[in-house]
Amino acid sequence: MHGIEVFYARVMPSDAAHPRGPYAKSAARRAEIVASATVVFGTHGYRGGSLRQIAKQLDLSLTTVMHHFPTKVSLLAAVLEQEDAADTDFPARAARDGFIPSVLAIVERNLARRELVRMFSIVSAEATHPEHEAHAWLLERYRAVTETYAATIADDRARGRLEADDDPRALADLVISGWEGIQIRWLTDDTDPVAAMRLLLTGLLRPRA
Amino acid sequence: MHGIEVFYARVMPSDAAHPRGPYAKSAARRAEIVASATVVFGTHGYRGGSLRQIAKQLDLSLTTVMHHFPTKVSLLAAVLEQEDAADTDFPARAARDGFIPSVLAIVERNLARRELVRMFSIVSAEATHPEHEAHAWLLERYRAVTETYAATIADDRARGRLEADDDPRALADLVISGWEGIQIRWLTDDTDPVAAMRLLLTGLLRPRA
Repeated sequence: MHGIEVFYARVMPSDAAHPRGPYAKSAARRAEIVASATVVFGTHGYRGGSLRQIAKQLDLSLTTVMHHFPTKVSLLAAVLEQEDAADTDFPARAARDGFIPSVLAIVERNLARRELVRMFSIVSAEATHPEHEAHAWLLERYRAVTETYAATIADDRARGRLEADDDPRALADLVISGWEGIQIRWLTDDTDPVAAMRLLLTGLLRPRA
Repeated sequence: MHGIEVFYARVMPSDAAHPRGPYAKSAARRAEIVASATVVFGTHGYRGGSLRQIAKQLDLSLTTVMHHFPTKVSLLAAVLEQEDAADTDFPARAARDGFIPSVLAIVERNLARRELVRMFSIVSAEATHPEHEAHAWLLERYRAVTETYAATIADDRARGRLEADDDPRALADLVISGWEGIQIRWLTDDTDPVAAMRLLLTGLLRPRA
């Protein structure tokens, strides 16, 4: 869901799986398992998906999958971590281009990442439960992204780019929430998420002409 | 998710389960199974939940559950139908009180329906998949609610209650999407959904003072 590169920066669970070996073959196998898990969790949810389904999809033995990811939760960590390395320079880009164009650039990039976005949407909905394995990840993701967006909105306002005078944290939360719903709608019936986000950002933040 | 009474009015799947017997005991048992399924689907998703889990939670035999709901999809239909009878008078209330207060009244009512909202959030995220059993339901829900909201927003504007001059359908879609994300956030960390919706509606629709 929503602005994955930014949303999932710096929100890796502390028990995330670590690479096991220096060999390229092992890294390729891990990447293949993570890609398959993205599709399986994006179809059945984390709760409904299994290591067995993933092994079957890849025509691997369960033992092979478990050699790389001994538990389902270690695989979830690797799946959620996929965007972790990307786009940590959001504040710098937003300072240069403005908050609104920087967010819209991520929305456009996500058009090519449909199954990844779907996986994040389903796992996030599941992870609202306090007992869910990704609940701490979801809380930290909201905290980190709200902080980054609120600071960037405040900075844009100080530069005279935005007219909205509401609390920057409340505006940041609405951008994040609106984005989540807009991506769910896009996944359902292809309603244009870029146009929707543009209207949302313009209405809430009121950019100066 | 989001304004259940309105969202789920008139969107019952055509293959929905029908009451099977005239006896109160049977109706009570059905209601009990639907309530349990709401919690199970709201925890494990529709894909991850099973009739067996529901039977176990109620200390019933699987045969008893299947007497009332022969298939998991027939139970899903009954679960999604829960709000079907409620609040079909949204257009009349909105004409009297205005669109914004009428939506906020539903957001407040949903505060007492946390597990139902969670179930709708998870099943909707799953149902973005074209092959999901509730995909047609989700498409129809978006269609019906967008139509109702767009007409109400246009009516409010004609009455001079709202200043926003954007396309009413695009505004209706943003209200629905924002609401979805706001409810997911509320389910995660109790961020006040009424305050968030008020800020969203005010920013997008610009009510006259």
